[in-house]
Amino acid sequence: MMTPMIFERRGLRLLDQRRLPAETIWVRCVDVESVAQAIEVMVVRGAPAIGCTAAFAMAVDASAAEDEGLESWQRYRGRFLEGLERLARTRPTAVNLFWALDRMRSLADTWSDATPMAQVAERVRALAQRIYDDDLATCRAIGVHGATLADAGRLRILTHCNAGALATAGYGTALGVVRSLAAAGKIEMVYADETRPYLQGARLTAYELSVEGIPHKVVADAAAAHLLGRRMIDLVIVGADRIAANGDTANKIGTYGLAVQCAYHGVPFYVAAPFSTFDLKTADGAGIPVEERGADEIRSWAGRLITPKDAGVYNPSFDVTPAGLITGIVTEKGILRAPYAEAIARVVGSP
Amino acid sequence: MMTPMIFERRGLRLLDQRRLPAETIWVRCVDVESVAQAIEVMVVRGAPAIGCTAAFAMAVDASAAEDEGLESWQRYRGRFLEGLERLARTRPTAVNLFWALDRMRSLADTWSDATPMAQVAERVRALAQRIYDDDLATCRAIGVHGATLADAGRLRILTHCNAGALATAGYGTALGVVRSLAAAGKIEMVYADETRPYLQGARLTAYELSVEGIPHKVVADAAAAHLLGRRMIDLVIVGADRIAANGDTANKIGTYGLAVQCAYHGVPFYVAAPFSTFDLKTADGAGIPVEERGADEIRSWAGRLITPKDAGVYNPSFDVTPAGLITGIVTEKGILRAPYAEAIARVVGSP
Repeated sequence: MMTPMIFERRGLRLLDQRRLPAETIWVRCVDVESVAQAIEVMVVRGAPAIGCTAAFAMAVDASAAEDEGLESWQRYRGRFLEGLERLARTRPTAVNLFWALDRMRSLADTWSDATPMAQVAERVRALAQRIYDDDLATCRAIGVHGATLADAGRLRILTHCNAGALATAGYGTALGVVRSLAAAGKIEMVYADETRPYLQGARLTAYELSVEGIPHKVVADAAAAHLLGRRMIDLVIVGADRIAANGDTANKIGTYGLAVQCAYHGVPFYVAAPFSTFDLKTADGAGIPVEERGADEIRSWAGRLITPKDAGVYNPSFDVTPAGLITGIVTEKGILRAPYAEAIARVVGSP
Repeated sequence: MMTPMIFERRGLRLLDQRRLPAETIWVRCVDVESVAQAIEVMVVRGAPAIGCTAAFAMAVDASAAEDEGLESWQRYRGRFLEGLERLARTRPTAVNLFWALDRMRSLADTWSDATPMAQVAERVRALAQRIYDDDLATCRAIGVHGATLADAGRLRILTHCNAGALATAGYGTALGVVRSLAAAGKIEMVYADETRPYLQGARLTAYELSVEGIPHKVVADAAAAHLLGRRMIDLVIVGADRIAANGDTANKIGTYGLAVQCAYHGVPFYVAAPFSTFDLKTADGAGIPVEERGADEIRSWAGRLITPKDAGVYNPSFDVTPAGLITGIVTEKGILRAPYAEAIARVVGSP
């Protein structure tokens, strides 16, 4: 199974997604700071994967504290809370990160000063592993529900960015649906937007589809409207970094444009995401912070300058798609449909 | 003045646009075949520039034939017609190429078998120079008319690909309008789509704007909808490779998507093009051939592989924007408005 991370009690191995598909290099992180930096520079990316990674970072730290001989929760508390804060500062948009950190914080609320460190560490590792295992099971469930999107025929699907195994614990959200459809023989072609500037589509989605032997073609992001206009696409499906209580969805820059194109061309536009991507505390898209990343992502590639060296750059990493442009949201409990506020409150909001 | 070509009677120097902005390298072509290959591999690109280049290729060839001692048109005719045919096979979409070759063919109709080669060569050189000079004057006129698009305030403009000095004899069409607006102090910001896969926006438009000191920011192609949705753009203006009799416009892949976004967001969408880009023999966009270029443009950049090496690729180089999505077409004789069939027949179709 393809997974972007391997937890080893005192270390977390992360598949360096900046180097794929040319090189398969695993980076071993042994403390919170190195994991936080790996998230910042995008060794690992993808909302669910970031959540799992942050949880494992805390597990690595708790293991280290245990081995260092700290006796109890009283001695570890400060370091634990600092770890959560450091990880929370890595990337602002994907909510799965904060969801995972909140679960860690809630776990800590169950301990007293005297709770032995061995027990603390064991519980932190168990929670991190559960977050990872649940994400994997969730992706498979999303795939099962998403597979119902195909009727008799085979689909020509367009996707953006990488919402695959590499963006999750494994299997993927939008690509989980694609995997599930492919297993049922219902994929004619997957068109993968290359997804500038980080090229998640050209590098990572194409890599996953190649490995799986699923027919695919990489296209320039700007070609999407042409494909839709020529009736080459039956449906578009993407992942999500944060879904507000009303269904407004933040995802990789370009997603909003695709949703507009789908509305214009009458092609269904689906989002695939686990409950951990929903943020019921944020009422709508206006409340979702959009990360702006550095100019170098646009100015150069593979160390070589593309633009003039002093070229101005604007590099928003995400955009927000209003719920009204979304045909359905594929979750682990089924496909949510408008009106989203009610559907989300009913399905996601319930324990 | 920035120009992508310098004619030298027996040679044509072309600025290698594949290497810009990192390197400024001029390639000297001394026969039709080397110019044809330069067009094919995109040493030179941009519809008006390709037209000028093809005309100069014929001038270089006629000079050579003259120097080789050919006596008359009778001796040169076959080679001349072969040259036209070779150049016509370089790229299919931009019509300025065929327009320039047709002018050469019409010129040849005025000669008899006995017309001296010296006279033939002199006329071919004069026509090529006139095509070039006219294109420059035309771009400046487009700039003058385009400058009327601004009222009192300063504009935030989004453009796609490079319709600048480098895509023409000089000055540019869409960027000619930008230059003209900038000279009048009416530019607040130019957002340049990077324009994958060839990166004409990131490389060439940013280069021209840097040289001119016009404020600009390069953005990923997929960010356009986000900018439009956030009300950061007052108008979009692009060039064209071929405009059909009804106003349907072929231009760089991504143009159609931008036009759809403009319609959705209520932002004006302008095309800037000289009469040589209009193809009155093609009734509508369905008749415009769309060039599909090789997979390597998507698969690698600067010699380094981006995708898995066997990744499927679909790489249409152009798309067609229906006339109904175009707010106006800025030409050397003013701004054409819908209904386009009538406006084009009246303004462009008249001698």
